Amino acid sequence: MSYTMSTTVKMPFPATVTAVRDALAEQGFGVLTEIDLQATLKTKLDVDIAPQVILGACRPPLAYAALLADPAVGALLPCNVVVRSISESTTTVDALDPDVMVTLAGGDTLREVATEAKQRLAAVLDALQHPLADPQTTSREQ
Amino acid sequence: MSYTMSTTVKMPFPATVTAVRDALAEQGFGVLTEIDLQATLKTKLDVDIAPQVILGACRPPLAYAALLADPAVGALLPCNVVVRSISESTTTVDALDPDVMVTLAGGDTLREVATEAKQRLAAVLDALQHPLADPQTTSREQ
Repeated sequence: MSYTMSTTVKMPFPATVTAVRDALAEQGFGVLTEIDLQATLKTKLDVDIAPQVILGACRPPLAYAALLADPAVGALLPCNVVVRSISESTTTVDALDPDVMVTLAGGDTLREVATEAKQRLAAVLDALQHPLADPQTTSREQ
Repeated sequence: MSYTMSTTVKMPFPATVTAVRDALAEQGFGVLTEIDLQATLKTKLDVDIAPQVILGACRPPLAYAALLADPAVGALLPCNVVVRSISESTTTVDALDPDVMVTLAGGDTLREVATEAKQRLAAVLDALQHPLADPQTTSREQ
C-alpha cells in the first residue's frame, strides 16, 4: 500500500517549506515539531543527503478525537509532512496518509478523523500546485 | 494488527519519562522531538487529558539506512515513544512498532532496519521493567 500522499512542485526547497507551512496553517494544522534531517545526519554520521525536513503537523481537535477513540494513538501523532529537495528547482512533499491510522488502529471514530485529516492534507498539497492566493507565485510560473 | 510495543510500569509519570530517555540513550536513540500533548491540548482546546509526552526517537544509522532504501520513509520517522500516565503510580509506554514500517513500505533493507530497531526498542521497554542498573530503583520495588 502507499503510505503517503505526495506531490512534486517546481519550486526550490526553501520556498516550498514556507508554502507548506502556510498551507498547513490555512487548514488548521500547527507545526509542533521540525527535524532538519540533512543537518541531523551530517552532524551525527557525517553523511550528505539532499535538504529534507520533517514537519510534525497537528490539528488539535482531530488529535483529541483520535486519543479519545484510542489511548495509544499518540504513537501515530503528529502527522508527518516531509519536504525534500529533488533538484534546485524541484521539491517533493510527502504527507503520511491518515488512512494508515485506520489500517493500523481501526474503528469508526478513527475513520472519521482520518477522512477529515485526509481532506485537509489533500487541500494542502493542492494549494502547493495552485498557489492562487499568491499572485507573485502565480506570475512566477508564467 | 497491533501497532505498538508497550509496557506498563509501576512508576510515576515524571520518573518514567526520565527512565525512558535514559534507556533510549543506552540503545543509541537520540530524542529529536518532544510534544507535551497534555499542555498542547490544554492550550489549544482547553481540555484536560492525563500527562502524556510523545518523544521522537531516532538512531541515525538506522534512519539513514531506511532513507537510502526508501526516499519517502521520512514520513515514518522518527520512531515515536509515547509516555502516558495511567494513575499516580502507573505509567504506560507505547513505542511505535518498527514492523509498521515494513508493513507499509516493504523491502528487505527496511526489514533489516526494522528488526534492529525492534530489538533495541524491546531492550528499552525491558530496561524499564528491570532497572538493575539503578540500585535505588530496584530497592524501591521490594
